[in-house]
Amino acid sequence: MSALRFPHLPPSEPQGCDLLTQERSKTTFGVHDLSTFLYGELYLERQERLLALLENEPAFNKSNRYFKGRTERIAGALRKDHALVKLSQKHKWTPEEFMQAEALIDEAGPFGLHRGMFMPTLASQSTDEQIEKFLKPAMRYEIIGCYAQTELGHGSNVQGIETTATYIPETDEFEIHTPYLTASKWWIGGLGKAANHAVVMARLKTAGKDYGPHAFVVPIRSMEDHTLLPGVMAGDIGPKFGYNTTDNGCMWFDHYRVPRISLLAKHSSIKPGSGEYVKPPNDKLSYGTMVLVRASLVGAARQGMAKAVTIATRYSAIRRQFVDKDSPKMLGDQIIETSVIDYSMQQYRLFPIIASAYACFFTSKEMMRLYYLNMKNMASGDFSMLADVHASSSGLKSLTTTMAAAAIEECRRACGGHGFSSFSGLPLMLQDYVPNVTWEGDNYMITQQTGRYLFKSFRDLVAKRASGKFNASLINNPTLAYLNTYLDNPDLKCPATSAAQFHNLEIQLAAYGHRAAHLVADIVNALDVEKRTWNSMLVEIYNVSVAHCQFILVQNFILGIRGEMPQPEGVAVVELSPQAKEALTDLSDLFALHMIHKQPGEFLTSGYLNAKQVSLIGKAVMDVMENKIRPNAVGFVDAFAFPDFLLNSALGRYDGKVYETYTEMATREPLNQMEVMEGYETYIKPFTNPQGKKGNTMQARL
Amino acid sequence: MSALRFPHLPPSEPQGCDLLTQERSKTTFGVHDLSTFLYGELYLERQERLLALLENEPAFNKSNRYFKGRTERIAGALRKDHALVKLSQKHKWTPEEFMQAEALIDEAGPFGLHRGMFMPTLASQSTDEQIEKFLKPAMRYEIIGCYAQTELGHGSNVQGIETTATYIPETDEFEIHTPYLTASKWWIGGLGKAANHAVVMARLKTAGKDYGPHAFVVPIRSMEDHTLLPGVMAGDIGPKFGYNTTDNGCMWFDHYRVPRISLLAKHSSIKPGSGEYVKPPNDKLSYGTMVLVRASLVGAARQGMAKAVTIATRYSAIRRQFVDKDSPKMLGDQIIETSVIDYSMQQYRLFPIIASAYACFFTSKEMMRLYYLNMKNMASGDFSMLADVHASSSGLKSLTTTMAAAAIEECRRACGGHGFSSFSGLPLMLQDYVPNVTWEGDNYMITQQTGRYLFKSFRDLVAKRASGKFNASLINNPTLAYLNTYLDNPDLKCPATSAAQFHNLEIQLAAYGHRAAHLVADIVNALDVEKRTWNSMLVEIYNVSVAHCQFILVQNFILGIRGEMPQPEGVAVVELSPQAKEALTDLSDLFALHMIHKQPGEFLTSGYLNAKQVSLIGKAVMDVMENKIRPNAVGFVDAFAFPDFLLNSALGRYDGKVYETYTEMATREPLNQMEVMEGYETYIKPFTNPQGKKGNTMQARL
Repeated sequence: MSALRFPHLPPSEPQGCDLLTQERSKTTFGVHDLSTFLYGELYLERQERLLALLENEPAFNKSNRYFKGRTERIAGALRKDHALVKLSQKHKWTPEEFMQAEALIDEAGPFGLHRGMFMPTLASQSTDEQIEKFLKPAMRYEIIGCYAQTELGHGSNVQGIETTATYIPETDEFEIHTPYLTASKWWIGGLGKAANHAVVMARLKTAGKDYGPHAFVVPIRSMEDHTLLPGVMAGDIGPKFGYNTTDNGCMWFDHYRVPRISLLAKHSSIKPGSGEYVKPPNDKLSYGTMVLVRASLVGAARQGMAKAVTIATRYSAIRRQFVDKDSPKMLGDQIIETSVIDYSMQQYRLFPIIASAYACFFTSKEMMRLYYLNMKNMASGDFSMLADVHASSSGLKSLTTTMAAAAIEECRRACGGHGFSSFSGLPLMLQDYVPNVTWEGDNYMITQQTGRYLFKSFRDLVAKRASGKFNASLINNPTLAYLNTYLDNPDLKCPATSAAQFHNLEIQLAAYGHRAAHLVADIVNALDVEKRTWNSMLVEIYNVSVAHCQFILVQNFILGIRGEMPQPEGVAVVELSPQAKEALTDLSDLFALHMIHKQPGEFLTSGYLNAKQVSLIGKAVMDVMENKIRPNAVGFVDAFAFPDFLLNSALGRYDGKVYETYTEMATREPLNQMEVMEGYETYIKPFTNPQGKKGNTMQARL
Repeated sequence: MSALRFPHLPPSEPQGCDLLTQERSKTTFGVHDLSTFLYGELYLERQERLLALLENEPAFNKSNRYFKGRTERIAGALRKDHALVKLSQKHKWTPEEFMQAEALIDEAGPFGLHRGMFMPTLASQSTDEQIEKFLKPAMRYEIIGCYAQTELGHGSNVQGIETTATYIPETDEFEIHTPYLTASKWWIGGLGKAANHAVVMARLKTAGKDYGPHAFVVPIRSMEDHTLLPGVMAGDIGPKFGYNTTDNGCMWFDHYRVPRISLLAKHSSIKPGSGEYVKPPNDKLSYGTMVLVRASLVGAARQGMAKAVTIATRYSAIRRQFVDKDSPKMLGDQIIETSVIDYSMQQYRLFPIIASAYACFFTSKEMMRLYYLNMKNMASGDFSMLADVHASSSGLKSLTTTMAAAAIEECRRACGGHGFSSFSGLPLMLQDYVPNVTWEGDNYMITQQTGRYLFKSFRDLVAKRASGKFNASLINNPTLAYLNTYLDNPDLKCPATSAAQFHNLEIQLAAYGHRAAHLVADIVNALDVEKRTWNSMLVEIYNVSVAHCQFILVQNFILGIRGEMPQPEGVAVVELSPQAKEALTDLSDLFALHMIHKQPGEFLTSGYLNAKQVSLIGKAVMDVMENKIRPNAVGFVDAFAFPDFLLNSALGRYDGKVYETYTEMATREPLNQMEVMEGYETYIKPFTNPQGKKGNTMQARL
């Protein structure tokens, strides 16, 4: 039977493309100027060039992405990863080009962790010999690896892992073993089917002592035919909420022997024969990588929010619903339904997300700068920045990934029923995004690291101020600065008395600083004076991390717009046009005020703001949204410069052809490839036409 | 190649089953007593009986549910729906039995809307003749129907639909037509593939006038062979975030003629020949159904939260992570990791969800009672309850479905990485649940109905009080009661001065009443005095609906525990045991205090609570969680009485065999049915062994 043909009808007026054109005509700044500020000219040119390549490669075609079951999707992702490597080799891509192409294709795959974790681990922990043996073949994809740390019973607490690697002096080998079911390696991306090697984190046992988790490079599948090696069992852990194009795997070792060179020995090693353990020189070095990963997740959070809100904002300008009776819209002399973007509730849902995406842009940039600066410092023995950068990166990872997951889901819901369709692009985006709130440290758990740093800073500062040897002008980081301002006057009140005054960015920043400091002081008092246990304070500790990181986001947003953020070495400065600067200032304004308006509790309990002021802030929020952000909403999301190929969304298309694209996508649904569904004869006909009567019986009945 | 065999290893100590046994020994109340209070003995017995049947029917087997792609899932769901109808016919199930069986199988299907919307619409809007012609064959599944209201361009605003049904006097027919792409019927459950009839909402046009949307029963597929009838095009709208076992469909009509009897004519009709329109007697009657659907969604919200938190609570008692240094747990003389349920943050995430599920139980019960009472009243011409019930049902639908969606996702995340696995049961649960926040009125949009009612009530009350003819003792509903208390003294302050005093339920309820009334008064002032537009107040209107409905939930929880909630007619009272009553009182306490603690803003800005009191509430929350709820946590979720067959979760099993079940489920992953994945030769081998070398080359290299 032939496929169904849906009719080609036009949508009723006004058309989506006309509505978007109209929106774009209202933009007060040059969209390309703002895109260039965000990404640089080079990046945007490269995007055009890469797009032309990617859109022509069948392995990257997205038109059937939403229809496939997991088995098909994994097969497609392997084909895609293969094609990507081939293409990168053909065109001799730089790492930047590779990453940008990967982001445009936007689908995890079996080789992802080979590049993302296996090779970086080899690079940072290998001896020269190991670089030759493991890293170089890995770079040529002769070795395809994965990173096997997490166990079935052990996630965030790496120290608790149970897999053992016992040194056998007689043969100069390690015996890797899985003693319990809870020690099964689990969740390991690329392990399920693709990898032939693994970095395995296992407890190093030698000379009767347990030295805790160490990294071992271990062959797991045969280089001849990819079968599992004797002593290794591995497979796929099954379907997941998202990330189904990756073969997350599980693995067990049965007294599996590997030679001594398997232990990645740049930092710590074993003396052959005696099995004596040689300690690493400084274990702080490993924090560097953690900071990098967490800082890069702030950038990924920006990307996630920005993609989702691009779709929702464009669609909201097109979708019309009900008539706003106080201000009806006209088309000629007809009253038409109001675009949903004109409802204040929709603005309150979406515009703060636009603002958050820009906020994360500045903070992500700053975190990367701090990471490189800190690495440089540490290399020369200066660890003074590490605590601050580590604390911020933990708290910011937690806050921004939580924000982004909420933002994607909010955008999905803000698209109404159609946000539930896969063709909106939002369900899969959410499903693939949400592991970010769990991996690299659960978002609740890791805020304890931020808290610990804040409390220590506060206690040190209090002690210093009491010592008489204190000089405020020596304070060199923003955390100490806001804590110090608070200690100068804990009972300070916000001076603003009108909605207009709350648009002052300094007034906003002071409120965030005071609130964070007040929470820090409260918790330190509870811990040190009231002697409450750490466990009993975890909710407050989470909240203080949020408050601290919101301060950072607000501050970087302000400094970034002003051009006052330090520039990374060797990076050319791109100036903001005055129009774009003004428009971004409105977003920064909304960003800071909206968070207070939505959750004013701590600003009030800190005593810094009062009820009247919160109400003024509410007015200021509605004012900036309606009068400043609304005309630029589509321009702000256009400036993110996401091509349709990336978004793969019927609702978020640049040209506004929402309903036509949506219908066209539905024609490709496999169920529509035949008119009568397969189960009809067995499961429907016995009810509706058991005797197999001929003729259109029901038509006749009518 | 043969399937992979994962090893049978035991988890390390302590075992999940022992941990749950230990938890259960701490429960202070009889779990079965509480289950009986929730459901009644009859329901629980029926569940056992139905389970025995369902678990033996292959069409209901859930063991491969998480592995299937959409095409397979739709096919399986049709098979399941067929089997369910056959089983119900064989055992002559009552509607209650049918619904209970459906809930245990817990999978939407192609016949769902036939029962859920098609037949109920026929039942309420048919003439006697139409009952014979349409409803009776539908009850026998000769007719399988769907309910086609939503259009591609028109959702919540039903008045905006564009499909037309024009009366043709010459032939005494209606011509149904789709004029634009935006008029395509869309999202119609069961339409995609299964239905042969549809109730179509179309604009009734007759004698040159447009009478707006009316319901028509229309044949769409042939009764002979299920092909589409000439003039009708229909298909499936494609994959969705969830609900993928339902064939949501789209449909177009091309000048499609149906006889006059197609118009469901109980309330309004057309005179043959002249085409004169006969108006319905009272259009308020249709609100009844809307109230029923929204009220039933409160019950579904309870079910959703309860299922999710059952899984997360049991798993949290088993999952161990890190050592709480202030209070390390021992196994023999070994320090072991602490169960995550013992961390205060985990308690703060999960216990309020347990409390919310119980809160929704009482309010759902009360809403159903009010629905039936209101229907009875309306039948005798008394519409006095309608406004209040309609307003509450809208606001409660919005609040409780938003709470439930958030709760399911929070439970998923609270299971850490494993919550991301489909085998946790939580991803699919979330995906299938979330349409609730959009359908039956978008959760932001419908709160305007609640707001309108509150503002009118407030204005009327103010006018009555000013008239001098006011008698407070005549106030007969809780909304007016809290508004009146507020008007007696808008500047009232909460009298509590210690954490202990906040455990007083009356003090809690007064805070909720004052806060809601304060918001109502503020908005009425903004609308009536400041003359702000309705659109500019939508955020505040949403917030006031939340505040009002939180008041209702808190109040019903308190009354329900005390046995002071009115009992529906003819329903036997089940008494709470004193132990269960005490335990539920702790939950009610937590429910009320936690919401204030989490979002204290409006309680502070209303002036009713101060910062010190919010801090005391924080202490009260932590105290009740640790000392009262913690020992009963597993008992509370056990009392929900969800069988493992329903939950279908490795993490939430009653017996605590988390890791064993999880591993066993992974063995069934299709990718594990062969050792080497299909794409190896094409996509991996060219990199790893291009020359096809024999021998384990990498092993050799090591």
